Formats: sequence, structure tokens, C-alpha cells
Amino acid sequence: MKIKRAIYPGTFDPITNGHMDIIKRAANLFDEIIVAVAKSNEKGPMFSHKQRIEMAKVACESIDNVKVKGFSNLLVEFCHQMDAKIIIRGLRSFSDFEYELQMGYANTSLSSEIETIYLMTSLEHSFISSSIVRSILKHNSSCAHLVPPQVNKIIIEESK
Amino acid sequence: MKIKRAIYPGTFDPITNGHMDIIKRAANLFDEIIVAVAKSNEKGPMFSHKQRIEMAKVACESIDNVKVKGFSNLLVEFCHQMDAKIIIRGLRSFSDFEYELQMGYANTSLSSEIETIYLMTSLEHSFISSSIVRSILKHNSSCAHLVPPQVNKIIIEESK
Amino acid sequence: MKIKRAIYPGTFDPITNGHMDIIKRAANLFDEIIVAVAKSNEKGPMFSHKQRIEMAKVACESIDNVKVKGFSNLLVEFCHQMDAKIIIRGLRSFSDFEYELQMGYANTSLSSEIETIYLMTSLEHSFISSSIVRSILKHNSSCAHLVPPQVNKIIIEESK
Amino acid sequence: MKIKRAIYPGTFDPITNGHMDIIKRAANLFDEIIVAVAKSNEKGPMFSHKQRIEMAKVACESIDNVKVKGFSNLLVEFCHQMDAKIIIRGLRSFSDFEYELQMGYANTSLSSEIETIYLMTSLEHSFISSSIVRSILKHNSSCAHLVPPQVNKIIIEESK
Amino acid sequence: MKIKRAIYPGTFDPITNGHMDIIKRAANLFDEIIVAVAKSNEKGPMFSHKQRIEMAKVACESIDNVKVKGFSNLLVEFCHQMDAKIIIRGLRSFSDFEYELQMGYANTSLSSEIETIYLMTSLEHSFISSSIVRSILKHNSSCAHLVPPQVNKIIIEESK
Amino acid sequence: MKIKRAIYPGTFDPITNGHMDIIKRAANLFDEIIVAVAKSNEKGPMFSHKQRIEMAKVACESIDNVKVKGFSNLLVEFCHQMDAKIIIRGLRSFSDFEYELQMGYANTSLSSEIETIYLMTSLEHSFISSSIVRSILKHNSSCAHLVPPQVNKIIIEESK
Repeated sequence: MKIKRAIYPGTFDPITNGHMDIIKRAANLFDEIIVAVAKSNEKGPMFSHKQRIEMAKVACESIDNVKVKGFSNLLVEFCHQMDAKIIIRGLRSFSDFEYELQMGYANTSLSSEIETIYLMTSLEHSFISSSIVRSILKHNSSCAHLVPPQVNKIIIEESK
Repeated sequence: MKIKRAIYPGTFDPITNGHMDIIKRAANLFDEIIVAVAKSNEKGPMFSHKQRIEMAKVACESIDNVKVKGFSNLLVEFCHQMDAKIIIRGLRSFSDFEYELQMGYANTSLSSEIETIYLMTSLEHSFISSSIVRSILKHNSSCAHLVPPQVNKIIIEESK
Repeated sequence: MKIKRAIYPGTFDPITNGHMDIIKRAANLFDEIIVAVAKSNEKGPMFSHKQRIEMAKVACESIDNVKVKGFSNLLVEFCHQMDAKIIIRGLRSFSDFEYELQMGYANTSLSSEIETIYLMTSLEHSFISSSIVRSILKHNSSCAHLVPPQVNKIIIEESK
Repeated sequence: MKIKRAIYPGTFDPITNGHMDIIKRAANLFDEIIVAVAKSNEKGPMFSHKQRIEMAKVACESIDNVKVKGFSNLLVEFCHQMDAKIIIRGLRSFSDFEYELQMGYANTSLSSEIETIYLMTSLEHSFISSSIVRSILKHNSSCAHLVPPQVNKIIIEESK
Repeated sequence: MKIKRAIYPGTFDPITNGHMDIIKRAANLFDEIIVAVAKSNEKGPMFSHKQRIEMAKVACESIDNVKVKGFSNLLVEFCHQMDAKIIIRGLRSFSDFEYELQMGYANTSLSSEIETIYLMTSLEHSFISSSIVRSILKHNSSCAHLVPPQVNKIIIEESK
Repeated sequence: MKIKRAIYPGTFDPITNGHMDIIKRAANLFDEIIVAVAKSNEKGPMFSHKQRIEMAKVACESIDNVKVKGFSNLLVEFCHQMDAKIIIRGLRSFSDFEYELQMGYANTSLSSEIETIYLMTSLEHSFISSSIVRSILKHNSSCAHLVPPQVNKIIIEESK
């Protein structure tokens, strides 16, 4: 049987406990998960593409069937390159559900064979977002309760 | 490797092209799909539990890894009986997204090992719901464009 | 040029100042408005179909290009009978917007030539709904500030 | 200075840990809280008005400045009777936010001096609702993790 | 009888098949439609005001009662200049419905005689937005299935 | 009894009649209100921090128990500095309700003893936002109906 490989795309600026929750659960559902870190320069990210990939890598290194990769092309093209037909998205009670559906339909219009599946973020992580983490960091406060410990360590060293 | 068995629960009063769209796509993602028809007597369904199971069976009989079963207990208990750890739900742009999330969290509170995953209904089926089909049937109009042909046949014979 | 005739459908249980606001503005936009009172027996309305038609008639009698009619068939069939290709719906900040869109698409699937247009209820009427009026009436309080004066008079006489 | 007395209205069918969370926090904000149990016969409640009042009373008896009362008139009239000018409502990420605002504006239209304030349900209780509790009870499962222990005890004795 | 002239405003960066769908249907409802291309410099548009006007012109040139005009003042002032009392807006299941209503009320506060009417984008175009088109273009992929052929031609020539 | 001091935070760019509505009502509920003007440089505000504080001060000077202060640290830290345990937020039918809840949970994760309470903006002010005021000002139109008269005076003098 063919391997079921799924892509979990995002800007991960930075990767949070909410992302990790989705990654761990997706890793139980499919054979291989590729955490795909978008370049997203136009968003003016707080951390560089290289830093964001590095943080995702240290956060995921203990999960066997998870790989981290950067990408800068259109998501559906990256899926083809990786030979993956499944996109994973997290749904938070506070996420932009409509935006997710719109992007899903837009991706389907570009490549009809790609399936997007949505996982629900665990309740205790459902309020966490990268933008809240960045807002706390900009005010020089601690986000140790919102990101994986290895990521927090990088952030602290970075800010010295 | 353990078989990945997923439950697709609903009242299916009656099963529609929107449901079929989700079932076919779920059947590509997991090893076995159980379409689970809830008794739901308190909802005062238009079709009997037996009729709804029958309609789901004829609609799904050509899809290899799909079974149809009725159930009348709590969904998480039915999942345990079936030895299934995955619940599939369809998300329509018009679905009650918040309701879905709330039910997902409630199910998790009853059985933390069960994972709910959401698939997006294809755009052309996204406005279809059983309640719209029932409303058309109550006005003696045709819903041939909204349900599988085998189901439409049963509905027509039923109404004679 | 062909006359532009539009249908404004609803249960009108009872007709409110919010409905009147939409009717008056629709009457400025199109040549003829038909206020179409649905039988809706399954909803268990508070007022009979006859009473609801009567209340709508007295409320609208001073607006020249507005007629009131009852109907019990499917809305798109009623539109064909009336030779009308436009359906008017009010949008309140508190209305079920998604439900409106779903019904619009369902109607289009039944009759592609019918156009649904949405008008925004004026801010000061945006919280008014028939169900709030019914809730106040059930508690024997006055809804004089929520319905047209002629309708309030009928309601008071009815309740004696 | 005048005492700040607030009304926390609902059907409480039955009272849940989510309600208790709001009650405890409201009790910190205002001098006196009246938990007001609506008769709501038209909703066909699972528990009688008497039972619902009793369950709320045992659940709240250890909180000093909280009283429980039943009411069957319009909420704004009950507020006047109690000489209370504040209504408390809980907001859950899954609650019908628009419904809440609509009711708030409707209440203001009936009595402009009454202020409605909204408290956010704690994250861990945000998926709990009376309807989910009732659904679990109808399937003879335990809701011990969703309601106060004293209420659970009454429910179990009731069902013997 | 006075001519019914309606304004369809937007940034049109670029004009899409979703916009064209609304324009064609609005052209059936009213005597004259003015597609009003906002300057919107603060949004940092991808195409210049001149280019966006030009693309809208080539896309609409075959529809008799549609004109394209640029504007840079407040929308309600532009309506007065054009002697138009109707504003047309498209509603997509994915559009910011609340934003639309807020702008409608704000426009009414500036000029109470202007009526905003909303049309529902056809289902197959409902996921299309200018921002999705821009995102695809930035990744050097084709948006031929999302914009009118004449517009696609201009975009391709532009990017050479 | 301890004084109940509440913080009403925002960017106030500029302060509007909608804000004033919330401030006046909050001032009836609690002993002291601190209108807290966030620096928010990253948002690129139209008015400087100093101007926004000044406008809030002149708008609030006639309300006895209201003070205006600027802040540039994290909101929960500012609450601790002010010895305030209550945050006030306005809810408009058009506000980003989900965003409000997310921020509320994020603040609770940073300081569990702080309570956020939400007040409903009066219907007639519910469409007003600072961004609509800024949009009107950028087009050199009058926002005299949307801001307090003292603020309008400052804006006019500023723009000379």
C-alpha cells in the first residue's frame, strides 16, 4: 500500500505549543508528516526563514515520522514535489475558519487531487497563536508557557 | 500496521450527494469507513431508522471499504464497540462550525483517545443538507439533483 | 421594458417594524413587491396563516406598489406563478447570514433564473425579530414599539 | 453607596460547571448575584422548574453573596422586582454570540436603564452546555465531569 | 420613470470572474451599472489605478449598460457625483459579512438616501478573491481559471 | 471594601462616540475607570500617542471617576501597576468577537487573577470604529457625528 504522506504548512513565526499539538496528532493518523515552513517574506516575519525552520526542527526532532522543510513556491506545487496528496490544517475555535475553507477551495481549483483535512486544536492550546507569542515577545515578556522549551531557549538566546 | 478505521456519523435523513462526497474522499484516506446512522428519534426524523440505514446501504454498496451500521448509544461508545479511534465530520461553508468544534471537545472529554477529523465538502455540494432535501420533499418537488439515484428511487417509491 | 416584480417571502408571525423597513425600501427599488406569507404549519406559528396575511395587509395598505399574498408551495414555484424573478431578503447583523446564503444557493439549484437580493435592515430595527415579539407577547407585555400600530391593534383585540 | 445587585438568568436544565464558573466570578465583581431560573415551559425542559431551582440552590449554597430564585415573567420585569440593574451573561467561544447581543438590545428596548455585562467562560469549561449534558444523560452515560458533585448526586437519584 | 443607476465599488486588484458574475447579474437588475475602481493607494495595490481601470474596462466592454470609472474620494460623494442612489456589493460565503454591514451603516450615516444592496456570488466563484489571484501571481503560477481571458492576457503581457 | 478599579484599554486613534458610550456605562458599574491609551507604534497610528492621550483626556474630563493614562508595556503588567483586576472591552455586533475572546484567554494565561468583562455598545454607535473615522478623515470629510465635539475641534485644528 502506498505511504500516506501529509503536509502541515504554515509560517511558524515561531512554532507554538498549538502547532506541536496538531503535529503530534497528525503523526498518529498518517505515515509521514512534513512540516512545511513558508518563506512568507511579504508578511514581514519576526524570525528569518532560516530561524523558523531551525526552531521547527528542534521542536520536532523527537517525533519519528515528522520532517521539517522550507518552501517558497505555491503550496500545491510543493505538495507535488513532495509527492504528498494530503494537506493538514489546524482549526482553532478562534481561527479564521472561513479563510481556511476559502484557501482549501482555492488549492482544490489548482490541483483537484489534493485533499485538505482539518484537525481541532486541543482546548488548552486553542487560544495560542504565533501573533500572540510575537506580541508578548515585543513587550519583553516570557512566552515559556506557549512554545516548546527548545524553542523558548533559542528565543532567549536570540534576544540577548 | 494496525488498520485505520474511521466512523462517519450522522442522522442521514436522507443521505445526500454532500454526504456521498465526504464518504468517497474519506474512503481514500483511511482503510475502512463505517457510515454510522444515528437513531435520533428525538429529532422526529422524516424517514425511519431502518429506511435511513437502507438508503445509506444502497448508496454506498459500490464503495469497497465502506460499511453502513445503525447505532443508538453515545457516539464515543459506538466508536469503542467498533474499535475505531477516528471520527470523520464534513465541514460545509454553511455548516455550524462552532457546533462541530463543541461536539468534538465534548467527545474528547468523554474519550480522550478519539480523534475527530474534518473534511471540506466540495464546493458544488456545499449548500446541500438533509433539511433542504426534506423541505423540497414536503412540497412534493424533486430532489433528484441532491441525492444519489438509488436513494431518489426509494424516495419516489416510498411516496407512492 | 418589462416590469421588475420582486417577492419578499417570510412567515411574518407577526409582521414587524423590521419587515416594514425592508418592504418600504424594496418598494423604492423595484416596480412591484409581493409580500409572500408562507403557510409554515410545521413551525407551529403563533398566529394562523389567515391572521398573518391579514396583519401584513393592514400594515402594507398605504404603500402603492406592494401586494400581500399567502403561499404554501415551494418558494421558487410561487415565484414562477407570480412571474417574478427576484427574491428579496433582509439581512440583519443578527440574522443567520449563512442560512440565507444556503437557501439562496438551494433556490438557485431549483431555478437558476431567479435572483436573490439582500437588503440591510436599518440599524434601529436590526435587533427586532418575530420571535422576540412572540416572546414578549407570551409574557403579556407590550410590543407596541416593535410592530406597526395597525398590527398592534389587531394583536391587542385578539388577546382579549 | 447603593448595593450592586446582578441577575444571572438562564434555564439551567441542569446547572453545569460552566454556569458555576460564571457565578463564582460574577460573585467577585458585584455585591449580590441572583441566579434566576426561568420557567421556560415552551422549551420542554428535561428537569422541572422545581428541580432546576433545587439543583441551582445546592450548587450555590456555599457562595455567600449568591441567591437562587425562579421566575416566569419577562426578564426585565423580574429585574425591576429584584431592584437589580445589571444582567450577567456568559460568553463561550461556542455560544451564540449574535443571539446574546440581540437579546441584550431587545432588553434595552424594554428597559433602557438595565445594563447587560458579559463574562468569558474559562477555557476548560467553554465546551460545556446544558444540552450536551442532557444528550449524555439521555444515553445513560455519566456527566460527573460536567456538573457540580451535588447536582450529579441529585441526577443519579432521580434516574433510579 | 427615473433611471435606476447603481455603483459597484471595489479595488479590483485585479478584476476576477467573481466580480464579473456580480456585474452581469446587477446589469440585469438595474438600468445602468458603474463599476467604480477605488484608488486605494494605502492598500499598496499590485496593479496601478490606471491598470486596474483598464482591466475592468476590457472585461466589461461587451456588457451594454456597464461603465467603468475610477474614483478617489469618499464612496458616498462619488455616488452623488454620478447621481446614483444604489450601491451594489457581492456577498460570498467567505466574504467578511460583518465588515460589509458595518460599511453599509457607515455609508448610511453619511448619506441616508443611499441604498446598499447585496448579491450572492455564484457558488462556483464563491472562493475567488483578488487576494488569492495576487498570491498565485506572486508565485508565478497561472490564474487563467480565475480572471476573464482579456484580463489574463494583460497580466501575462505585463509580467514579461 | 476594596475599590473596584477597571482598565479600558485601546489605541483610541481617535477616541469615538462608541468608546465614550462604553466609558460612561463602565463608570456607572465600577468605582474608577482608567482609559488606557496603548502606544501601538507598530500599527502606524494616524495620531501620535501624545495626541491620542490628549483627545481622550478632553473627551472624558467631565466624567468624575474616569482617568486617562498612556501605556506601552503588556496590558496585564499595566493592570498590575495600576492595581486593577478588571479589564473592560466593548462588544459591537461588528466587532471581532473571536479576537476578543482569544485576547481574553491569552491575558488570563499571563495573569489568572485578571477578569475581562464585556459591555455591549449601544445600537446607534455599534457601527462606529476608529478605522471608519480615519477613512473619512483621509478623504477630507467630516466625522462630527462620530466623535465627541471636543475631539472634532482638535482634529479640525490639527488638519489646518
